[in-house]
Amino acid sequence: MVNTAIGQEALFGAQEIKSPEIHDDNSVTFRFLAPKADSVKLTGDFLPTIKIQTQFGAMDVPGPVHLSKGDNGVWSFTTQPLSSELYNYAFEVDGLRTTDPNNPFLIRDVASVTNIFIIGGGHADLYKDNDVPHGTVAKRWYDSPGLGMDRRITIYTPPGYESSNQKYPVLYLLHGAGGDEEAWSDLGRTAEIMDNLIAQGKAKPMIVVMPNANITQDAAPGKGRDGFYKPQFMAPGTMQGAYEANFMDIIKFTESNYRVIADKAHRAIAGLSMGGFHTMHISRYYPNTFDYAGLFSAAIMPREDASGLDVYKDIDGTLKRQMDNGLKLYYIAIGKTDFLYNANKEFRDKLDAMGMDYEYLETEGGHIWRNWRVYLSDFAPKLF
Amino acid sequence: MVNTAIGQEALFGAQEIKSPEIHDDNSVTFRFLAPKADSVKLTGDFLPTIKIQTQFGAMDVPGPVHLSKGDNGVWSFTTQPLSSELYNYAFEVDGLRTTDPNNPFLIRDVASVTNIFIIGGGHADLYKDNDVPHGTVAKRWYDSPGLGMDRRITIYTPPGYESSNQKYPVLYLLHGAGGDEEAWSDLGRTAEIMDNLIAQGKAKPMIVVMPNANITQDAAPGKGRDGFYKPQFMAPGTMQGAYEANFMDIIKFTESNYRVIADKAHRAIAGLSMGGFHTMHISRYYPNTFDYAGLFSAAIMPREDASGLDVYKDIDGTLKRQMDNGLKLYYIAIGKTDFLYNANKEFRDKLDAMGMDYEYLETEGGHIWRNWRVYLSDFAPKLF
Repeated sequence: MVNTAIGQEALFGAQEIKSPEIHDDNSVTFRFLAPKADSVKLTGDFLPTIKIQTQFGAMDVPGPVHLSKGDNGVWSFTTQPLSSELYNYAFEVDGLRTTDPNNPFLIRDVASVTNIFIIGGGHADLYKDNDVPHGTVAKRWYDSPGLGMDRRITIYTPPGYESSNQKYPVLYLLHGAGGDEEAWSDLGRTAEIMDNLIAQGKAKPMIVVMPNANITQDAAPGKGRDGFYKPQFMAPGTMQGAYEANFMDIIKFTESNYRVIADKAHRAIAGLSMGGFHTMHISRYYPNTFDYAGLFSAAIMPREDASGLDVYKDIDGTLKRQMDNGLKLYYIAIGKTDFLYNANKEFRDKLDAMGMDYEYLETEGGHIWRNWRVYLSDFAPKLF
Repeated sequence: MVNTAIGQEALFGAQEIKSPEIHDDNSVTFRFLAPKADSVKLTGDFLPTIKIQTQFGAMDVPGPVHLSKGDNGVWSFTTQPLSSELYNYAFEVDGLRTTDPNNPFLIRDVASVTNIFIIGGGHADLYKDNDVPHGTVAKRWYDSPGLGMDRRITIYTPPGYESSNQKYPVLYLLHGAGGDEEAWSDLGRTAEIMDNLIAQGKAKPMIVVMPNANITQDAAPGKGRDGFYKPQFMAPGTMQGAYEANFMDIIKFTESNYRVIADKAHRAIAGLSMGGFHTMHISRYYPNTFDYAGLFSAAIMPREDASGLDVYKDIDGTLKRQMDNGLKLYYIAIGKTDFLYNANKEFRDKLDAMGMDYEYLETEGGHIWRNWRVYLSDFAPKLF
């Protein structure tokens, strides 16, 4: 069954098992060929949750389910009908985690790789590459004088950008800890979300700039001078001020390389988790630069500044200056079970106390990509 | 050991085993944690070959090796010192094929996913993202009136493209059966090879256009309107004339969207396997269009034309016209054990008989990406 000739496997056929199979009622059957296994389990973010203890306290996580063994050595499990979403999953065979050999659609989150599938018919239709006009996703490099290196960056330009002379507004979209310049385009489905929202007339055509916040690295793992290193949850120095202080390098690169409307009214910034932290700090450190700021499950927490630039000094004063300078939208979104929920609550209390307006979205669930795709889908239509 | 919380795994740590570990002498140790397994094997294109029977006859393929079990449940195997190359591998645990959970660097070839690593210090240094000026890789969409749809395409522009007014020559680089517009950039390391060759002064700065030859599909699996379908070895209609007959759509798109030198002297076309077949046919069907043609392990074989455009008619006559029109380089490369070796030998005999000059590179090995990266590295410096 297992073809040992890796290089030729594509030519001479792998297993012909269908997994996942999405049925008409949106239930899904998973299959795994393992004639000799004693146990095959499925983990996936669509399964009922169980409570586990972690260093951050109790968390609800999806519990594994057991597949049933068929006569042919194929194990299978069928879910209940699932609501529209992009889901991920993996198998566990006799205690060993493995991806699905019948599903080539994989996604990397930090150092973990899982399979994905999409259930359409609802909001996850935004995550599909539908037959609509498509923007361009470019992976390119810019010079950061502040960080002293060329750095890789992902840029989405909307449909029609190349064939027009129009100038566009810009959304700067920041990843979380362990992420990089690939995170929003891969895990976040940014191009798909923007293509679809623009096609539906729900979002204005805009450029989306997705930089890399790991200041000691020039690129995502395997894409830069550090080679194929194993990604870690947090790169050194990444929440110590230097990224925020040098963010103007990214704005200057964007505004001198793309047809943009280079004013506050046409600049937005948003980010998830650590990127929400960066968004909060960058938008108040440069308090007259962005008319829109989006904090998605923001990692609101005290941090030491190692940049020598006092980026984290006088937070209240610079927030007030940002408010007094005026902005069109300060947006905060978080899931009810996010371990950062209370930190965000305290931050909202602070904003309330100083009289700063913001829009607030509270969803089910926790600190997961599912929510960040929803937040982007909700935030982008409010811009410009 | 196995964390069942997929979404949280990145946060709370996976296995801390180092695999692969590349030693100073370029031997490599692979490790796999499987305390309960009876057998763990490694397959990889760096292992000694064995002979197997296939539908195409006997083929030499890398044989699997057994890992040894250590006291801690970690199985391991160390290779001999390896020469410089980009290698791929997978594990087989009690007969089940699985990728390496400690190596997030994966590559998809048709529907198969394997892990990869690079041994430097030789020609594979060209495949690394070194600290040199980098070009841009854009995934965008163009309109193909001939095929009646918008189609996804990968475009490499060289370092400095965006900041100059220079016009550039263009290499059209075609994938093989089962491939798509991702194949050359992912498996072929095209951007890395071009960045490095250009930085070394060995290749001229050029634009590289990597289209999708699967005429019934608009994009790579998971990137277009067909959604997450399972890739197959050969998409319908792909070697039946329509792609070749409509190739001008791609040239027109390129020449009206990029700063190119739009003449024969600054157009090259090359492809691997089916892409070599397409290169041969496109370059003689449009016999005064390209000054450079590269046939990498070309699938020289008779095919039925279903396009109604007689693309495969009068091959000898159009080849002669191509020759008489003059061209700077006709390039043929193939591995000694390629199943297409004899077909290429017959084709070279035909060219010899008609007096058509060509450059010929014969390498070890067969119909594998390893060779195609080498052929591109050899071909690109000869252009323009």
